[in-house]
Amino acid sequence: MGKQSITDVDGVFGHAIHAGIKESGLDLSYIYVPNAVASAAVFTQSKFSASSVTYTKKCAKRHTLKAMIINSGNANAATGKEGESHTKALAQLTSEYLQINPSEVGVASTGIIGKKLPMESIEKHIPNLFKSVKVKNGDKVAEAILTTDLTKKFVTKSMKIGKKTITVSGITKGSGMIAPNMATTLGFLVTNVSVNSSQLQDYLSKAIKCSYNMMSVDTDTSTNDMVVCFATGQYNIASNDKKQSDMFQNLLTEVCIDLAKLIAKDGEGATKLISVDVRQAASVKDARIMAKNVIDSPLVKTAIHGEDPNWGRIMMAIGKDPSVKLNPNKVSIYVGKSCLFKHGEPTSIQLGLVKKELANSEVDITIDCGLGTDSAKAWGCDLTKGYIDINTEYN
Amino acid sequence: MGKQSITDVDGVFGHAIHAGIKESGLDLSYIYVPNAVASAAVFTQSKFSASSVTYTKKCAKRHTLKAMIINSGNANAATGKEGESHTKALAQLTSEYLQINPSEVGVASTGIIGKKLPMESIEKHIPNLFKSVKVKNGDKVAEAILTTDLTKKFVTKSMKIGKKTITVSGITKGSGMIAPNMATTLGFLVTNVSVNSSQLQDYLSKAIKCSYNMMSVDTDTSTNDMVVCFATGQYNIASNDKKQSDMFQNLLTEVCIDLAKLIAKDGEGATKLISVDVRQAASVKDARIMAKNVIDSPLVKTAIHGEDPNWGRIMMAIGKDPSVKLNPNKVSIYVGKSCLFKHGEPTSIQLGLVKKELANSEVDITIDCGLGTDSAKAWGCDLTKGYIDINTEYN
Repeated sequence: MGKQSITDVDGVFGHAIHAGIKESGLDLSYIYVPNAVASAAVFTQSKFSASSVTYTKKCAKRHTLKAMIINSGNANAATGKEGESHTKALAQLTSEYLQINPSEVGVASTGIIGKKLPMESIEKHIPNLFKSVKVKNGDKVAEAILTTDLTKKFVTKSMKIGKKTITVSGITKGSGMIAPNMATTLGFLVTNVSVNSSQLQDYLSKAIKCSYNMMSVDTDTSTNDMVVCFATGQYNIASNDKKQSDMFQNLLTEVCIDLAKLIAKDGEGATKLISVDVRQAASVKDARIMAKNVIDSPLVKTAIHGEDPNWGRIMMAIGKDPSVKLNPNKVSIYVGKSCLFKHGEPTSIQLGLVKKELANSEVDITIDCGLGTDSAKAWGCDLTKGYIDINTEYN
Repeated sequence: MGKQSITDVDGVFGHAIHAGIKESGLDLSYIYVPNAVASAAVFTQSKFSASSVTYTKKCAKRHTLKAMIINSGNANAATGKEGESHTKALAQLTSEYLQINPSEVGVASTGIIGKKLPMESIEKHIPNLFKSVKVKNGDKVAEAILTTDLTKKFVTKSMKIGKKTITVSGITKGSGMIAPNMATTLGFLVTNVSVNSSQLQDYLSKAIKCSYNMMSVDTDTSTNDMVVCFATGQYNIASNDKKQSDMFQNLLTEVCIDLAKLIAKDGEGATKLISVDVRQAASVKDARIMAKNVIDSPLVKTAIHGEDPNWGRIMMAIGKDPSVKLNPNKVSIYVGKSCLFKHGEPTSIQLGLVKKELANSEVDITIDCGLGTDSAKAWGCDLTKGYIDINTEYN
């Protein structure tokens, strides 16, 4: 099933330390791809983007990024001019240790909004981070980017494309304020293909659209979301060969979907991963709206937490956006393999059987609209007292 | 502060009984305005509208409604053809007792989705409901329309318009699956003005837009939402007199806002009413989007439940829709009278002082965008373990 760490990919390095940003634990890390031939990135569309987002967006537009410096425990968002200078200082320091240009260093921050980065402490510890710049501690980086996450999140997949084994490997973090919009929470991907940055951006944007952007923990969109992908250039794929290009797109999309599912599964307080599949919709847009409305609905999320086959709430959720095309008499709703609602009427299924399916840690909901041929998938999690606990006390 | 019951208005009657729909308590009621000169109504835009909604919508379009028959404990939604015939039967029975046309009777249902109405039990008990058709038990009607609500919700306001005392009196219910879209949960209003139905519809639609439609408990939109308003015709107001017309519009809007606030305050599991006021926005549309995004944010709702002055989450929420115009450096955020964030920078306010304001049962959030002159208000509630309890177990 592939390797366990992004630094297992040739030409990718990384390390992490504790730099006094969190009370304890790894909180400062870097990813370094010295020979990157391409980079691509997507960002939050929040009107209050953190300075790490505006800085990295600017660099990524003009240059091929070769490194990321990432801190957790502090979003460095809404910190004014001082926050902006801290972001630049992080890039500057990193560029000096790696002996590259500051504009080749992306900066990512995640954690609480509105607090100043403890730059003194960071400056004191950063020499330890870069003691050696070619170490392969990707596993530590995966740990150092977490906040309220309970698990490290990494996915690696490989596939023969032509005669070459193409690999895509990524790490990511969740787990609250998660409803990315045309962008995402933090995610970092590496691949050994040789493509240019504009091609990589195209592949990444397509992959994000049906992975991170179809996943929500709590409908809230962060100020710091960012996914960055580096290409090491080891293997060529023929971008003008539609078959090879599609294979790589699928590989990248699959890794992004798996990462997004890991985030949803480890959502704040979550006990269940909810996967929603809307089929036979009149358009892809409609299918996406309905799938997202189901995973965003607090009433669906609490019903599933209670292992209650309350299909009425699923029906409510797919019907709540008046812009979608829908004929209630053609709609069928499934939980797992059980059909609860068929062509506009409740079925006579034994709800006891459905309760058993809901006892699993992964719950699949399928909606057949019976109208067209378009479909969309989305991922979310249940809503629990754990979410309330975490978020009434987080500060 | 005016009267306590809709039946205190001359020419308005109502009564309620237990008809075996809920396990116990009042669950079937009527409102009767025999000499109604006008009626107006707004409905859910859910694609899965209950048969009560489609039936009443049709009647209200063609006729002046003179009565409502209302059941709680069962939404009669997603119940197929049989559900439709039950709705018609309720209107038919009511029309016989009141000796009016079935098309002059609106039907409203609220409660669980997907279960059949117990028509046998209703038919057995309904003669008791109509033992006398001119009783004034509006207080019982206000009780009979509730589901998981903890409090009865009624508002009456009067105002001298010209030389006449114009009254608007309404009742409503909440308290989960509450995020009306161009319509609302159940609400019933009476007024003693003399206007025609098209004028009344215009007044009602305007009032709903900035009251019910700016209120959300949990972002979920019901299949059964409906607000109906009756005019008894007692007093003329000069509709072509802009001043009188504006005065009546304001009176109706104020009553609708007060009713909407009662719903938010009694949201499922809620302990606090949250009022959000977005000012100096570039457009009304932007102000409405931002105000709703703040009251809908689970992270804002949990922070306020935890009495945590986490203004970063408020900032996140107003920034999350990329379509709004916003300059972060001009934004200021207040909780109560305390300014936490001014022109893009955190203030040095003592957070202890703000915590005191958050200990109140009503929390006011004000956002100054510093861009224009438009504004919008919205109302919601905190998100608590009580909401999780109610909705993991509701079936």
